Amino acid sequence: MAPKAMSDIKFFNVTFPAPFVAHVEINRPQKLNAFYEPMWLELKTIFEKLSPDPDVRCILISGAGDRAFTAGLDVQEASKSGSPLGTAAPTRDPSRQATSLRRHIFELQDVISAVARCEKPTIALLHGYTFGLGIDLSSACDIRFAESDTKFSVKEVDIGLAADVGTLSRLPKVVGGITSWVKEVTLTARPFTAEEALQNRFVSRVVKGKANLISEGLEYAKFVASKSPVAVQGTKNILDAAWGRTVEDNLNYTAAWNAAMVQSSDVSRAMLSGLQKRTPTFEKL
Amino acid sequence: MAPKAMSDIKFFNVTFPAPFVAHVEINRPQKLNAFYEPMWLELKTIFEKLSPDPDVRCILISGAGDRAFTAGLDVQEASKSGSPLGTAAPTRDPSRQATSLRRHIFELQDVISAVARCEKPTIALLHGYTFGLGIDLSSACDIRFAESDTKFSVKEVDIGLAADVGTLSRLPKVVGGITSWVKEVTLTARPFTAEEALQNRFVSRVVKGKANLISEGLEYAKFVASKSPVAVQGTKNILDAAWGRTVEDNLNYTAAWNAAMVQSSDVSRAMLSGLQKRTPTFEKL
Amino acid sequence: MAPKAMSDIKFFNVTFPAPFVAHVEINRPQKLNAFYEPMWLELKTIFEKLSPDPDVRCILISGAGDRAFTAGLDVQEASKSGSPLGTAAPTRDPSRQATSLRRHIFELQDVISAVARCEKPTIALLHGYTFGLGIDLSSACDIRFAESDTKFSVKEVDIGLAADVGTLSRLPKVVGGITSWVKEVTLTARPFTAEEALQNRFVSRVVKGKANLISEGLEYAKFVASKSPVAVQGTKNILDAAWGRTVEDNLNYTAAWNAAMVQSSDVSRAMLSGLQKRTPTFEKL
Amino acid sequence: MAPKAMSDIKFFNVTFPAPFVAHVEINRPQKLNAFYEPMWLELKTIFEKLSPDPDVRCILISGAGDRAFTAGLDVQEASKSGSPLGTAAPTRDPSRQATSLRRHIFELQDVISAVARCEKPTIALLHGYTFGLGIDLSSACDIRFAESDTKFSVKEVDIGLAADVGTLSRLPKVVGGITSWVKEVTLTARPFTAEEALQNRFVSRVVKGKANLISEGLEYAKFVASKSPVAVQGTKNILDAAWGRTVEDNLNYTAAWNAAMVQSSDVSRAMLSGLQKRTPTFEKL
Amino acid sequence: MAPKAMSDIKFFNVTFPAPFVAHVEINRPQKLNAFYEPMWLELKTIFEKLSPDPDVRCILISGAGDRAFTAGLDVQEASKSGSPLGTAAPTRDPSRQATSLRRHIFELQDVISAVARCEKPTIALLHGYTFGLGIDLSSACDIRFAESDTKFSVKEVDIGLAADVGTLSRLPKVVGGITSWVKEVTLTARPFTAEEALQNRFVSRVVKGKANLISEGLEYAKFVASKSPVAVQGTKNILDAAWGRTVEDNLNYTAAWNAAMVQSSDVSRAMLSGLQKRTPTFEKL
Amino acid sequence: MAPKAMSDIKFFNVTFPAPFVAHVEINRPQKLNAFYEPMWLELKTIFEKLSPDPDVRCILISGAGDRAFTAGLDVQEASKSGSPLGTAAPTRDPSRQATSLRRHIFELQDVISAVARCEKPTIALLHGYTFGLGIDLSSACDIRFAESDTKFSVKEVDIGLAADVGTLSRLPKVVGGITSWVKEVTLTARPFTAEEALQNRFVSRVVKGKANLISEGLEYAKFVASKSPVAVQGTKNILDAAWGRTVEDNLNYTAAWNAAMVQSSDVSRAMLSGLQKRTPTFEKL
Repeated sequence: MAPKAMSDIKFFNVTFPAPFVAHVEINRPQKLNAFYEPMWLELKTIFEKLSPDPDVRCILISGAGDRAFTAGLDVQEASKSGSPLGTAAPTRDPSRQATSLRRHIFELQDVISAVARCEKPTIALLHGYTFGLGIDLSSACDIRFAESDTKFSVKEVDIGLAADVGTLSRLPKVVGGITSWVKEVTLTARPFTAEEALQNRFVSRVVKGKANLISEGLEYAKFVASKSPVAVQGTKNILDAAWGRTVEDNLNYTAAWNAAMVQSSDVSRAMLSGLQKRTPTFEKL
Repeated sequence: MAPKAMSDIKFFNVTFPAPFVAHVEINRPQKLNAFYEPMWLELKTIFEKLSPDPDVRCILISGAGDRAFTAGLDVQEASKSGSPLGTAAPTRDPSRQATSLRRHIFELQDVISAVARCEKPTIALLHGYTFGLGIDLSSACDIRFAESDTKFSVKEVDIGLAADVGTLSRLPKVVGGITSWVKEVTLTARPFTAEEALQNRFVSRVVKGKANLISEGLEYAKFVASKSPVAVQGTKNILDAAWGRTVEDNLNYTAAWNAAMVQSSDVSRAMLSGLQKRTPTFEKL
Repeated sequence: MAPKAMSDIKFFNVTFPAPFVAHVEINRPQKLNAFYEPMWLELKTIFEKLSPDPDVRCILISGAGDRAFTAGLDVQEASKSGSPLGTAAPTRDPSRQATSLRRHIFELQDVISAVARCEKPTIALLHGYTFGLGIDLSSACDIRFAESDTKFSVKEVDIGLAADVGTLSRLPKVVGGITSWVKEVTLTARPFTAEEALQNRFVSRVVKGKANLISEGLEYAKFVASKSPVAVQGTKNILDAAWGRTVEDNLNYTAAWNAAMVQSSDVSRAMLSGLQKRTPTFEKL
Repeated sequence: MAPKAMSDIKFFNVTFPAPFVAHVEINRPQKLNAFYEPMWLELKTIFEKLSPDPDVRCILISGAGDRAFTAGLDVQEASKSGSPLGTAAPTRDPSRQATSLRRHIFELQDVISAVARCEKPTIALLHGYTFGLGIDLSSACDIRFAESDTKFSVKEVDIGLAADVGTLSRLPKVVGGITSWVKEVTLTARPFTAEEALQNRFVSRVVKGKANLISEGLEYAKFVASKSPVAVQGTKNILDAAWGRTVEDNLNYTAAWNAAMVQSSDVSRAMLSGLQKRTPTFEKL
Repeated sequence: MAPKAMSDIKFFNVTFPAPFVAHVEINRPQKLNAFYEPMWLELKTIFEKLSPDPDVRCILISGAGDRAFTAGLDVQEASKSGSPLGTAAPTRDPSRQATSLRRHIFELQDVISAVARCEKPTIALLHGYTFGLGIDLSSACDIRFAESDTKFSVKEVDIGLAADVGTLSRLPKVVGGITSWVKEVTLTARPFTAEEALQNRFVSRVVKGKANLISEGLEYAKFVASKSPVAVQGTKNILDAAWGRTVEDNLNYTAAWNAAMVQSSDVSRAMLSGLQKRTPTFEKL
Repeated sequence: MAPKAMSDIKFFNVTFPAPFVAHVEINRPQKLNAFYEPMWLELKTIFEKLSPDPDVRCILISGAGDRAFTAGLDVQEASKSGSPLGTAAPTRDPSRQATSLRRHIFELQDVISAVARCEKPTIALLHGYTFGLGIDLSSACDIRFAESDTKFSVKEVDIGLAADVGTLSRLPKVVGGITSWVKEVTLTARPFTAEEALQNRFVSRVVKGKANLISEGLEYAKFVASKSPVAVQGTKNILDAAWGRTVEDNLNYTAAWNAAMVQSSDVSRAMLSGLQKRTPTFEKL
């Protein structure tokens, strides 16, 4: 059975380049893949469909065209009157304006969180401009590879904002700590290179050329998809549950989780294949 | 309006080398800028004044002279009888002695916490001996740059102590995790170099020569000061609130924070300036 | 007084190569030091004895022979019927099977936790195959050095399991964060080298040749053992308590801890020795 | 402007008995208002619509008919083959079955959480059979009143389940602690009375007769609706955020929240009305 | 040695009615002991002095006159222009106004937190109007007794505010949970009686007549003061540290605390006195 | 199969008065069932055996004789020289003494925690003197019933100690919050009655006469034992895991737990029995 097709999706190409591998491409290259309101809902829909799909075991994300993964928020759209960041509504009661903005922020956070909650491993393939929302989005992925000329920036400060849809919460998690470097780049929106991203562990690989980036991402995704899905998805779930909690909590949660999961047929299949030096296959999950 | 002048400060030079930039220099070079009782109170006073000052947007910290940022605790002063670590009071009831010591530790922790709580970004410029309290103090700063010949040591074990004014709580936060290296240097007080500090992400830049260090620090501070203070100070606040808490907690806190802050005039000024390729200016905060 | 001898230990060599230094060697080289049921209990017993022993101040762990620190779980033993992961019991009620497995996981977790809870610093000396349980075990140690040809793998996914005896809880703690690299190696069991382990801070030193590894480990252990045991063991305790908790929590805990510990005779001995440029000696702890 | 009408809702009556007050009535009286699959989705939809509606300031929930608030899960429907708790699928791999069940539990939890997340205060008016899901649902409300003959039971144990859609997480929160009484009633599903519910603080009022219950609930709801919505909704939000977190965390969150909300026009309207002994009116929120 | 006298205190009477017992009386009876700006600072000063004073082992708090413990915030003063809640500053940038208000809220929170942090047990004796700040203040005390005619109200909602100086964070802690009753009284500011306060465990005793209230409070304070101060102050510290933390955390903290405190001479004095049926005396703390 | 017999137990009677019900009786009535060193180890052994025993589904705990559940610590034994609280060792280094005491406290905490960790529900039947350790021990049980003349006291303050083997961590959990009453009784060791214990929810039932207490306890235990053990033990586990954690955490943990447990044959047995109005029986667990 093939994965479920995505209809009514306009701003993303969703393809299935290999068995059990999905590829989500942000597709608004004429605007450097910048995001505006209608794109958000689509992104959430896509990940909510891929997450439980038994024909999907690994997901790649990249940007259409050579120039950008995404330039982030489409500032021209955002500054229009009527938009939450727009120039309207100056006379409104600040507490009512705050309530309305809080609802809006929660909606956007929830889109990025849909990526973070996805049951299947997600790999961001970063290239060209990777600004603002590009950092929020890829920080919600499990793994990040970058093309060697990628231009990164935690851009929010440059539009007068603290990054509020996830970067400030997830960046310390994915690079490990509120290091001196994290503060350098978040406090000023200064750009940084792929090399710097690698040294500071934001990405785990740097690849020369976008075509090579996509193909190395695909190879890795196929490797993930060849493993026991019970083991892979459990590993992701437990690692993510560990964040911000104590070791004792985590050990207890792991035991509750694996009490069911160790009963999987994957275990005997994998162990037997290992002893017999064969490649195992696993039931859908 | 110029920032508020600091009177009655003896052990520190507080200057304002650029608009919105303060520079705090530890000034006891004849003793390698080592700390003793009366210096603590001054340090706390300085940061409590700079923190809310609307004319300050970024703060640099360095040591006077070429030999040391600070050699840490002044052991000769500390070993005098009458001092909490001194050789007196051997016959005292251990629980009463413990109560008195706990109060003293809280007082010292509170000085370093005043630096950590500072609303404005703080940049430690490390050089020469940076021992003991120098690690506690700079771990409470946002960003650390080091001169290439800096000699670091988490010195406390060498005076029979677990570091209790902040290093053990903040070092894992600022380098990211209780890594093998963190344990190597904290369990033995073994010295380490600027290069090692960079590799292990304690500092984010190494600069050759103290004069260059100061000037690179100043350039960065001016860059911070040119950005929206609402965005910069919000970024610092949210990042620091994130530590030791879950992603969900952080997203919720961020939404509460930004519900007010997104209403800032900084947002429209910054967005407009971006579209018009002008440099924005921002109201005081 | 010499440290307490270990009787009835079959799968480990426990020796005392220097004053206050213990060396635990996994000793089943014909099976690449792979673990099976009876070895677990011994490992727990050993660390419960060494932990409070006043003649022990630092502990080294390595594997016998040149080929492996440990290849991890002995899959042949584990796949036998009767074993918790074995092929028996397919008709059993899944909830009762889950309860039985959960008890079994807790028992294994408790062995590794006995290493993590050890009051004295522990140094894992990694070499050859360091697979599966080798990562769980060494992640529970304080410090990790690796021989330059060590072959690492978080192997559990390859036997259809999420790693449930500690790696997923402790690896993010010891390398600092759920980085892109952590997910790369845990989601697929892909092997990694000593160099990669160093860059990602899993180990803090890479040493060429097993003999050199052991001797560099021993030198470092002797250095630890020369320091105030009150300071060293307090430093370990406070650092570990810090994980997953906020800075305010940690400062409060540190003050409660040091209220007693600062009263130690080690402080005056260490301070006096420092002023007099002598080597201090310390009472047993 | 009247609140938004609810179309396509079959199992609930949603009415607006007073300005700013909504009343949600579970409407399947012929089955004691027992829940089955299609009702869940409706309940979530209703609360997601009422939550941000500016014409709603307080919400009442009750059951249609005299016999039951709700008898809980419709066991006959749930035991049908095809249902997640049904008798099918005995030969399925336990780990895959577990994954599928976990997704199902999350969906149900999410319905109850939609009630808990509702921005506006919610008041459960309990009467007749209030079993199983009736406890889950009312524990997610802010306030509970009960008719004097209400028959309560945390029924899940009687169908072989630990209560997993919220009771075990929220009951200790709403009665205050895992008291001896909480364990008595949750470990055995033993029934309890309205009087016992009052003594153990599950409900805060007991009222004789269903008509009186509804009318006392309505009076209270109108009282809530007469207060500043900024203050009321902030109070709910901050109280709920406080659960399971430390006082320091809560004070910090409260300050971030109120930094915006204290700017409300409600404050000056309320203060002025108080001084002038008038009844204030407030803008919609 | 008598406790340190308080000079320059205008709005409070601080007396020492029995050995080791202090009594703080709010003294602005002509305004129902309502609070305004200058009173805050005094309250903080008083508790910072009493907290470490070795001649103080228990502290009583009450209001001068028969009419009120305190009517809460002095709304007339608060509504003056220039005050943070006043009617000025309507044209100010909302984010800058939010920053200024947040600083102001922190200052007020810190006053109440000074009471909560006090090392010695504190007993609030409540009578007459106990509104708004009266709830904040007494929730920060350890024990609450009430006169039988006390009129309580969590008044903040009536001035358009969520209670932000501590009630919403501490009330659930001191009554045990976010019960139905807590929400009833905080969401509407509805008044409640001493009897209701007792039933809902906000106070632990109700006493008829203010004179009897004071005298019963004094008897209890003298009883506290007769016990080992090491034991009493440790009990308070450990209980307060327990809130919002897990049992495992608390057991670990308790062990660190008592490692020093069990060495107290109080233990042998108390045990010996117990065996000999004598009244022990204890050293100052 | 009968439950496993307990050999070598001297200070407790362990009997099995009904199928699946165990009864642990503290048996040192000539000393009011006071505890001293050798009793501790036995108590831990007993609960470690009963916890996983499939023939045990509920456990009762009471004291032998009419005079006491337990008078707590045997002070005469504890004050002997050689004992950790004894009068010896005055000249020892306080930090080394603290380390030794901390190890001792952990040992005692671990005994009480063995009761708290027990997989099966535990019911404390309290009567006569229930002092000190009697509170620690019964706070670690799930349910508490008391005879009407029980004399309670959190006695530790009277021997100069903060209660450190669990009362201060667990009492707020089991009565719900750090209420005014909790502080009243813990800060002074003042005695309290069964009636007061009921009103403050420390016990959930008061029964006249010890024989009636035992028989009512036994009836309740048999009721527990008649229910699905998968459901009962899951309920206990999830409720206990909830303490000190957020609702979101708990919901996630519950879903992981029940993913396996809902697959139990108990569910279909219980549902079918319910529909057919029969009494179900369940497999051992």
